[in-house]
Formats: sequence, structure tokens, C-alpha cells
Amino acid sequence: MSLEKFFNPSSVAVVGASQQKGKVGYEILTNLIKGEFPGVIYPVNNKAEKIEGLKCYPDLASIGKAPELVIIILPAKVVPAIMEQCVKIGVKSVIIITAGFKEVGEEGLKLEKQVAQIARRGNVRFIGPNCLGVISTYDKLNASFGGDLPVEGGTSYISQSGALLAAILDKANAQGIGLSKLVSIGNKADLNELDIIQAMDADPTTKVIAGYLESIEDGNLFAREAERISGRKPILLIKSGGTTAGAQAASSHTGSLAGGETAYEAVFKKSGIVRCKSITQQFNYAQAFANQPLPNAARVAVITNAGGPGIMTADAIEDHGLDFATLGEDTKRRLAEKLPAAANINNPIDVLGDALADRYEFALDVVLDDDGVDAVMVLLTPQAMTQEIETAQAIVKIAQSKPNKPVYACFIGASKVEKGINVLQQGKIPQYSSPEDAVDTLQVVVEYVRWRSKPKRVVKLFPVNRRKVDKIVEKHLRDARREIGEMEAKDILEAYGFATPQGAIATSAEHAASIAQQIGFPVVMKIWSPDIIHKSDVGGVKVGLRSITEVQDAFDLMMYRIPKKQPGANILGVLVEKMATSGKEVILGMNRDPRFGPLMMFGMGGTMVEVLKDVSFYLAPVTAEEAKQMLRSTKTYQMLEGVRGDEGVDIDALAEAIQRLSQLVIEYPQIKELDINPFLVGPAGMTPIAVDARMSVE
Amino acid sequence: MSLEKFFNPSSVAVVGASQQKGKVGYEILTNLIKGEFPGVIYPVNNKAEKIEGLKCYPDLASIGKAPELVIIILPAKVVPAIMEQCVKIGVKSVIIITAGFKEVGEEGLKLEKQVAQIARRGNVRFIGPNCLGVISTYDKLNASFGGDLPVEGGTSYISQSGALLAAILDKANAQGIGLSKLVSIGNKADLNELDIIQAMDADPTTKVIAGYLESIEDGNLFAREAERISGRKPILLIKSGGTTAGAQAASSHTGSLAGGETAYEAVFKKSGIVRCKSITQQFNYAQAFANQPLPNAARVAVITNAGGPGIMTADAIEDHGLDFATLGEDTKRRLAEKLPAAANINNPIDVLGDALADRYEFALDVVLDDDGVDAVMVLLTPQAMTQEIETAQAIVKIAQSKPNKPVYACFIGASKVEKGINVLQQGKIPQYSSPEDAVDTLQVVVEYVRWRSKPKRVVKLFPVNRRKVDKIVEKHLRDARREIGEMEAKDILEAYGFATPQGAIATSAEHAASIAQQIGFPVVMKIWSPDIIHKSDVGGVKVGLRSITEVQDAFDLMMYRIPKKQPGANILGVLVEKMATSGKEVILGMNRDPRFGPLMMFGMGGTMVEVLKDVSFYLAPVTAEEAKQMLRSTKTYQMLEGVRGDEGVDIDALAEAIQRLSQLVIEYPQIKELDINPFLVGPAGMTPIAVDARMSVE
Repeated sequence: MSLEKFFNPSSVAVVGASQQKGKVGYEILTNLIKGEFPGVIYPVNNKAEKIEGLKCYPDLASIGKAPELVIIILPAKVVPAIMEQCVKIGVKSVIIITAGFKEVGEEGLKLEKQVAQIARRGNVRFIGPNCLGVISTYDKLNASFGGDLPVEGGTSYISQSGALLAAILDKANAQGIGLSKLVSIGNKADLNELDIIQAMDADPTTKVIAGYLESIEDGNLFAREAERISGRKPILLIKSGGTTAGAQAASSHTGSLAGGETAYEAVFKKSGIVRCKSITQQFNYAQAFANQPLPNAARVAVITNAGGPGIMTADAIEDHGLDFATLGEDTKRRLAEKLPAAANINNPIDVLGDALADRYEFALDVVLDDDGVDAVMVLLTPQAMTQEIETAQAIVKIAQSKPNKPVYACFIGASKVEKGINVLQQGKIPQYSSPEDAVDTLQVVVEYVRWRSKPKRVVKLFPVNRRKVDKIVEKHLRDARREIGEMEAKDILEAYGFATPQGAIATSAEHAASIAQQIGFPVVMKIWSPDIIHKSDVGGVKVGLRSITEVQDAFDLMMYRIPKKQPGANILGVLVEKMATSGKEVILGMNRDPRFGPLMMFGMGGTMVEVLKDVSFYLAPVTAEEAKQMLRSTKTYQMLEGVRGDEGVDIDALAEAIQRLSQLVIEYPQIKELDINPFLVGPAGMTPIAVDARMSVE
Repeated sequence: MSLEKFFNPSSVAVVGASQQKGKVGYEILTNLIKGEFPGVIYPVNNKAEKIEGLKCYPDLASIGKAPELVIIILPAKVVPAIMEQCVKIGVKSVIIITAGFKEVGEEGLKLEKQVAQIARRGNVRFIGPNCLGVISTYDKLNASFGGDLPVEGGTSYISQSGALLAAILDKANAQGIGLSKLVSIGNKADLNELDIIQAMDADPTTKVIAGYLESIEDGNLFAREAERISGRKPILLIKSGGTTAGAQAASSHTGSLAGGETAYEAVFKKSGIVRCKSITQQFNYAQAFANQPLPNAARVAVITNAGGPGIMTADAIEDHGLDFATLGEDTKRRLAEKLPAAANINNPIDVLGDALADRYEFALDVVLDDDGVDAVMVLLTPQAMTQEIETAQAIVKIAQSKPNKPVYACFIGASKVEKGINVLQQGKIPQYSSPEDAVDTLQVVVEYVRWRSKPKRVVKLFPVNRRKVDKIVEKHLRDARREIGEMEAKDILEAYGFATPQGAIATSAEHAASIAQQIGFPVVMKIWSPDIIHKSDVGGVKVGLRSITEVQDAFDLMMYRIPKKQPGANILGVLVEKMATSGKEVILGMNRDPRFGPLMMFGMGGTMVEVLKDVSFYLAPVTAEEAKQMLRSTKTYQMLEGVRGDEGVDIDALAEAIQRLSQLVIEYPQIKELDINPFLVGPAGMTPIAVDARMSVE
């Protein structure tokens, strides 16, 4: 769907135009005029003849034809009637500025639904209500009361908070930062964040999509579309208002770790969305993405006229996991030829406190030629001889002449560097107030580059036994039993190619001993009850039992103690299982997010998982590469690779297990959450074993 | 030692005063004059009669008396001669601006030492060389070429980078931020960072000490003094240039984890120094510390005129571990009485987009009265009716009338809020460009308050057997043996009250079996060789051996395999020890930092320690409370408290062990590093056991 007419209409009607300064109806009308909107403007007001020299119309019908865009500013209660008029005369695009809808409660929500219904029936699309309006700089359209039309630029902004959009506009206008489209989406009663982001994606003037969101309407669709769009244009989002609902009822480890913002984090990670913590950060990032090329890799060179800031930048580069570039011999030779003897020709290149613009120009030119340099940071502190304007001009000139590598600047200070900063801004060189901010930005850009250059996603499908799983899942749903017990959970896993330990359920101490003898010592014993979910919490797990006596004692102790700890639990026996004597314990899990779907988890296993929280999440389905990425983003990964003489584990087998589990939870949306903990992995050749498992269905 | 005359001299001589604009000798002289320095200024220049209307002197001697402060700007090679003159005429305080000393290499270093020697002989104290000078706003002294004299304020700044100081001065002057003293310490050939910080501590106009440091001269003294001073005045430092030397040779876990910046982090933590990552952060923090009271606790209330920023602030408060205040019923009743019905009277308090200054004034006044509120953030976004100036005035007025709780502001935007921000700045209300920055600042302030309110440090001394330790340490030092083997390391620990497992060294498989039978199964066996430090790396550790056969097999396998893995290792036998069958594994350790002394470590034990890095560090000696703080600042602590039905461990016993170890490393500076890993701790009643230990002496 094209939103073309919201940004570039040939005619705009302002319903509720006012001649009274300070009124929203006056602000929007005059903003359209001040912005030199090239189309026709129809003020609609039944009490005025003319406003600001424009002929007024008593109502929409009296215009005589349908305006391409209608902006409604009248009180909430009359908005349904205005929307009816829009439908009647064939208007297709409407912005409802008016507040007093969903955000004020039940009454408003009803009104809002009524308006949406009228619009839907009449094929009208609308933005709002309760919004600030729309701006499109390239179309000279300022249909908002947020502020003056900004200069043209590559960043478009979508905001769920009108006030924030106004503040951002003010900031951009004050600093001369260019923008393309700005949309205040208000209550999203019709067009939502994704519609607008898609429109921005389709817009050739938009290079970067930035936004502030409090909620996402269709999580699944959003995730998919955001991933596609991020591949072309970076999306920088502030997401506020973490929801902790959903997670509270979780009974699995995965569920309790997946609470709060984890799903959003996972969606953003998968979709390549850059998450920003503050408006300052978002401005920092947008500057770099919109105005500078992307780097090939992370090797950074620094040019400075003072030692201190150079060291601070080097520290920040190390802290942020970027690489400090090693300059080539040729580069150093060239630098040494022209720079003063006291200058440092190694990275960070110190052109010294008395450097004029020419030294900066020369050094930047030489360093950009170095094949071992992917990005350059230019630092300047105001010193006695510093030419801040000329230096800025030189940086702009060289960066433009060698446009394949990003150049970021950090002029430190205020009034003494202000004019230089203006030159940088106009020359599209991102300027940061501290080296830390510049490096933080580059790190985010590098991460985006890495995300974008990952291979195409191919999700592998394994042959599995769905019939077996169908049976278990259906039985539980039929009986309205939420929890699938350990044995059947393991049956499901086996159907998806997982190995589980040998074992059987014993109903007496003697029975337990005979099972143990059959499968061989050592064994593990676990209480077997549909009512006991965390067995170790009630003393229902004994490991390393090595003799008949130990097995019998364990059985009887559980029978004696557990009914006291959890009275009323229906105890069906004790599971006696072969104990694996080697391998490392990890946890695999899934929690189904109500908005985004199955969230896979991997981490260090055992009872410590919720303490150490060394886990990673990813939205299913996952590819082999993504499964490995999940492994690598934990500290546990180092342990899996082998430490201190220990043999490493079979990483491929572990990644395959994650993929198999991903397939299971995609094919069975009924499975709400699951844990395999511990999942025992060993060196290549040893089949990993799902030692314990639990699932719930819904 | 008083540095009074560096800040408030009655007379200043400028040796190297120049009449040529742009020259440092001109800049400093004119800065003194422009700053309206109330004392006498003597320009010293043998080629001019008068500069800027002031009579010139051909040399220091011709002044006829000793100026209280002498500033030297002449080239490096003549500085020794000038210093001689200073000595001769009785000058006591000198600032050497001149560069070309230590920072340019060997030759310069020699010159620098010569100057220092002359000064020392003549009882002259000096700042520099290679610095920017000194500023004291309250004394109207601008003896620098960094920029104009700033307005008076509570923050003093010390910088090891002159350029950075100039940038900071520029920023402060542009934003009207007040400062007290600024000192560029240059090469620190005489007065160092601690001397200056002590002078700032003694200065009644300084409320906050801020600084940029690349190195610290006397680590031990610095740590002690900084701790004392932080108790009175917050110290905010940027420390750059992390040293990774020292750590590279480490052979212990503690040593390899203690590398890089850990020692600085530990010193800063212990001393209450607030570490800043960037100048922006430092400005943010300094504003709050210098201009607002400290909060009693961390319960924050937010007042806003827009929902979005309110939510962002709430998110930030949660992210930063502060508490979101719950407003009292009385507060809510009062708010409801006067605010419009649509306003949110719960935290964050939304006074709505059409709020004028009076609504902010009212809400702030009411909220500050609430006993459940420790600090208030006031957010403002520029909207149609917003009164940014009047609102700022109202905030200042109320904050001044109720000066017991901190009030921070965040006016979001630029030109539309600029005038309001100026009012805030003059009214000493810290203003932040994003809610994130405001909350980050408050977190740091709250941490400082917690640090400052900790009880007085009392280090407990335990009765120990020093004679036993003396013997072992001396023997190793005499024989120039760096590593103390496991058995003797355990002897030392026993002398300090630690329990170790029963055991003995076996020299044959049969001997091993008989030791095992004597102490009882299960046992642990460890290779016994002075050459093998990480036993598990070579397969030299076997645990859980439960029979004579297992013990004999383990012995013979080690004898067969280990010489192959580490040929030439002098194998003395195998240690057979009682295996503890319960308890949790932690690590205790110490690494002696060359600058700051013994750095204690606590963390999760076992071979995973270097992977998980869940460790905490603290400078010895530690008190009981600090030992517990070390425990609490790891994730492992939750495990120690007991998870999932597990019994917790004896925290007091563990804290005592840390204190005992702290006593050992304080009493034996010869001990360079040590690990107790694992240190086995169990529930109250079980004596913790040092299962394995290693130490090295020097």
C-alpha cells in the first residue's frame, strides 16, 4: 500500500483551521504555509472567511472536490462525522490530530473504534488520532504542529510520542541536522508503525529509519518485515516500556529467564534493528548511518592534536571490541616525511598541538589510503594555533574525495570549536562530543555491517516422527493437562532425533535395584510425579548411586520425605536412569512469546542457570549459523571449546540439537515452553543426551 | 604542604612574557590581566620596556624581591638557569609551562631531572613542566593559556592533558558552568596529582574534585588519601591508558584475571572515587555533586508533561537499579485536588502537554514533601503552550525552598528549551540532555552516598602462627624458588587458621592405596611436582576414586602419561587426599599489584573461573563488611545463599576466610600471588576446606 499522498499530496484540507495564534488549527495551517507547501491548501472553518490570506470553506463538501489529504483538528466527538464526510466526498488519506480517544479511557476507545470503522468501510486510511502530524522535507510538507520544517536529510523518524518528536525536531533544527520524513503515529487506530516503516523503506530519500516505539502491533509480521528492510536500510529504534507480563507465569527456567525485554532484544538482534538507549545515542547513530559509508571491518585509525584524547579513544576502541589499526610501513614512511619529528606516526597519529589544517589534511589523506584502515576518527582540541574552521573544511574535502571509508570527527570543547562543528555538519561528517560517543557509534555501525553480511538464512529440516509427538500432545490437550512429564517429554525429543538415557520407572526399592542392575551403575534416581516440576527443590533427585544398597536407600528416603515436603503430590514411582559419567551440562529451552513466537534459549546447564544467567536467546526458526551464534554469545562457549586440558565438545552436534528443537517448536505451536536441562554434550563421537526434560502445552 | 601561593599569590612574575599575540607568553600575561588578577604582575622580558602597559623586567633578580609565584615560559634549555635564579632570590612556587622535557625523550628527561634537583635543593615547589598552567576563579587568577577565566563554581579540575583541560574550560565557559580551581599537571616532575588533589581537598570553595589522569605516582598513598578525601568531597576521575604489563607474567588464576585495569577499579571502588568514562559523563556527574544535595536513598519520582519521556525515564530507573518511588496516599490526594482529571497522579506524574509553569511548581512542591521520595526528575518537552523559562524558574524556586532532596531536570530539545536551560543552570539545577543521562548520574550519586555511609573500617586481626610461615617463606626465598608447592602452601594456610583435607604423598601405587585406606574413600589424587603448576592441564588430577584398584590405576596412569606430556618435570609422587563430598567450590586469591599492593579475589571456583569471570576484587586489608561486599558483588553469591532447595553456605565463615587471607598477604609482602581453588564451603557448622592451593613468593 502506498502512503504517497500522506507525504506528497497535491491538495490539503485543514479541518479546524483557526485564526487564533497558539491554537493547533492555526499552527498547522501556518506551518504548511511557512514550509512553502507547493500544493493547494483548503482551510476548513465555518466561522471565518479567510485565514492567513487563504479562502476558508465552511465544510469539506463545499470545497467541491476531494482533497488528497485531510487533516482533522476538531474535538473528538465530531471526528466520526468528519470522517463520514471524508468517505462521502472520496477522501482517501486523513491525519487525525485530535486527542481524547483511547488514551482517555473506555469512552474514548469506543469513539476511536467508531472512527476506524467508518474509515474502513469507506476505504480511507488514516494516521492518528492523538498525534502531532506528518512532515516530509523533500515535499515541503509540514502538516504538523511540531515545529519548523527541517532541512532535507537522509533520516526519517517515526514516533509513538508526539512530544518526543517535537523535541527531536527542535534539536535537529537547532543543529542543522537534515531529516526526510517525520511521522507522529499517535494511537495507531489504523496505520501502525509497520505501515509507516514500510513507507519509509519505499521512500528513496530515506536512508535511515529511526523511531521511538512503546508497543508493536503484529510482532511476527513486524519481525519479518524489519529483517527484510534492515537489509537495505538501517532501522534505529528506541523501544520503551518493557512488559514483564507474560513471563510471570513461567514455570520453566527458559520462561523465567525470557521475561521482560528478552523477546524484543531477540527480535531486534535477528532483524538487524539497532536498539538505542536514548535520543542522544539515536542522533549519534543516525548521523553516521545517514552521512558516511559503512566500513568493511573494524580497524580504526585515530588522528589527534593532543595525547590525552588520543589515549581515551584508544581505550574506548579496546573497550568496545573494535580493532586498533596497525599502520602500514608505507603509511608511516609517508607520514614521517612531512609531519614534524616530534609527531607520532603510529596509531593514534599525533599531529601535535601546533597543527594547522594542512597537517590534518595530509595525515587524513595518507591514512585513508592504508589498506589496514577501515575507519578514521579525527580528534581536535582547541589550542592556541588551532584552525578549527579550516581543519573541518580539510576533513570534509578529503573525506569526500575518498568516499569509501567512514570518517568521524570529535571536536572537543564548545565555543572555540563551534564554527568548525558547523562546517563538519554541513559537510556530512558526523561530529561527537566525546571520543567515547564516536567509538560507541562506530561499534554499532560495525555490528550492523556484520549482521548485513551474514549468509542467506537456510533453515534445515530434519526427518522426524511427528505421529508420536501428535499422540502425546493431543492426549495432553484433550485431558487439559498443561505439563508433559519427563518420560513423555523425552519421548517427544526422541521423535525429533534426541538421545535420552536408558531407564525405567521403579515402583519399589527392589524394583529400582533390579532396574539399576540391568542398565548398570552408576545411576540417577528422580522422583516421578506429575505434580512435581522442580524435582531437586523437594530432594527428588539423587545422582551417582553406585550400589544396590544406595539405590534402595534412595528410593525409600524419597518415599518417606517427599510426601512431607509436598503433601498431596501424586507420586507414581522413581525414575531410575543410567548416569552419564562424562560430558558437559548445558541447557536448551524454548519459551513462546505471546507477541513474537518461539524464543529459543541456550546456556550453561544445571541448577545454576538462573543464577549465572549465562544464556542467549534467538527467535525460532534458527539456522545452523544462528545456532552457533547462540553458542558463541555465551561465556559457556569457551568451556565448550575446552579449557585447561579439557577436551572440547562437539559444537556441530550441539548446534544441530538447537536446530532440531527449533523445528519441533515451529511444527508444534501447542508447545508453550520447554527445558532440556541438563543436556549433556561430549567430544566429537559422543551422542549428546537429553538427561532431563520438561514441556508444557496449551 | 600548602599550595596556597599557587592559587592566591600576591605577586606573579611571567618569565617569558611576550608582546606578540598568539605566543604563549602573551596569552598567559593577558589572561592574568583580563581575569582582573588583584595582585602585582611582573612581566619578565629583556627586550621590551612595557607589555600591555606593565613595566617589564630584564630578569627575575631585577624585580628586587621574590614574587610569590613565578611562571616560566622560556625554552627548555634555559629553564635550569631560571630555576637557579628562583632559588637565589627566594622564590617558593613555580609553574613551568615550557614543553620539551620528559615527553620528547632521553635528552628532555635529563633536563627535567636537573630542574627538579635544583628546585629540591632550593626548597622550590613547582607544577609542570609541559603544562597549561593554573586557574583559581575565586582568587581571580588565570595563570594559564587554556582560555578565559570561568565563573565561580564548586568543581575543581586537575588534568594530565593540557589540551583536554582547555577543551573542558571552553565547554564550561560556553555553558556558564562554574569552576573553582583548574590545574594542568603536565609531566609531574615535582608536584603530582595527589599533591594537587590534597590542595583541592583543603580548599573551601571546592565541593567536587574532578580530573583526568593517565598515571598515578604513588599508588598506595594515593589509595589511602583518596579514600580519606572522598569521605568529604566526591572525586570524579577519568583514568585512561590501561596498563596491561604486570599481569602478563601471572601464573595464578587470580593473576591472570587481575590484569589491566582491575587494580585501578579496585582502588577506585575502595576509595569511593567515581570513575567517569567520558568528559560528557564527568560534566553530568559534577553538575549533580556540586549543585544538589545528596539523596538519602534511591526512590525516584518523575514529573513530566509527556508520556513517552516519562516511560523512558521509568525504564532507565529500572535498568540502573534505582527504585521507582511509590507516592503516598496523601501526595496523590493533594495532586488530584489541583491537577486536571486527565493528569497521571501516580509516578511518573504526568502534568499533561498543556501544563504551564504553575502545574510543574505545584507538583514538584507536593512531591518533595513525600517521605517516600528521595529524588525528583523533572522532564519537559517543548509543546505549544509550554513555558520553558517560567517552568525553569519554578523548579529553581521550589528546589531552593526545599533543599534537602536533589532535583534534576531534563528539558528535551534545543532552541525551544535553551532559555529554560540557562535559567536552570544559573539556579544550580543540573540539566541533562536525555533521561538516560539524568538517571545514570543519579545512580552514581546514590552509589557514592552508599559508599560514604558505610561503617568505619575495622580490620580484624586473627591469632596466627607466623613462625611456621616465616620458615617456609624464608626457605623459598633463600633457595630462589618462586613457587610454593601445594603441601607447603597448605601448611601456610593452616598456620592462618584454614582447614585442609587429610592426605599424604604417595611414592608408589601400593603406598597410594594404603594412604587411601587409612584416610577413607573417596579420595582425590594429584600429581606432586614443583614443575607442574596447573595439574589438570596435564591430566594430573583424578577425583572420586572409590577403591584400592581405582587408586592404584590412577597412580600408574599418571606415572606413565605425565612424563610424556611434560617431559623433564621432576615428579616427586602423587598426593592422595580425602575427597570432600559436599560443599560448594569457590576460589579465593590474591595478586600483588606493583602499584597498589595486594588485590584480593573471590569468585566461583573450579576450572571455569577464567571462563565465567564471575569474580570480584578488593584491595587488602579487608574488613568483615568488605569481605561480604566482595561476596555479594558476584553472581555466585546467589548460589551461596542456596538455590532450588539447596541449603545455603556459611557466609560468615567464608567472609572470615577472606579476612584471614587478607591478613596473611598484608603480613607477608613476600607473597606475590596465591590461589585457593577450590575452596570448599558448606552450610553453617561445616568448616570450609582449602582443597587446593598455590602461592608464589618474591
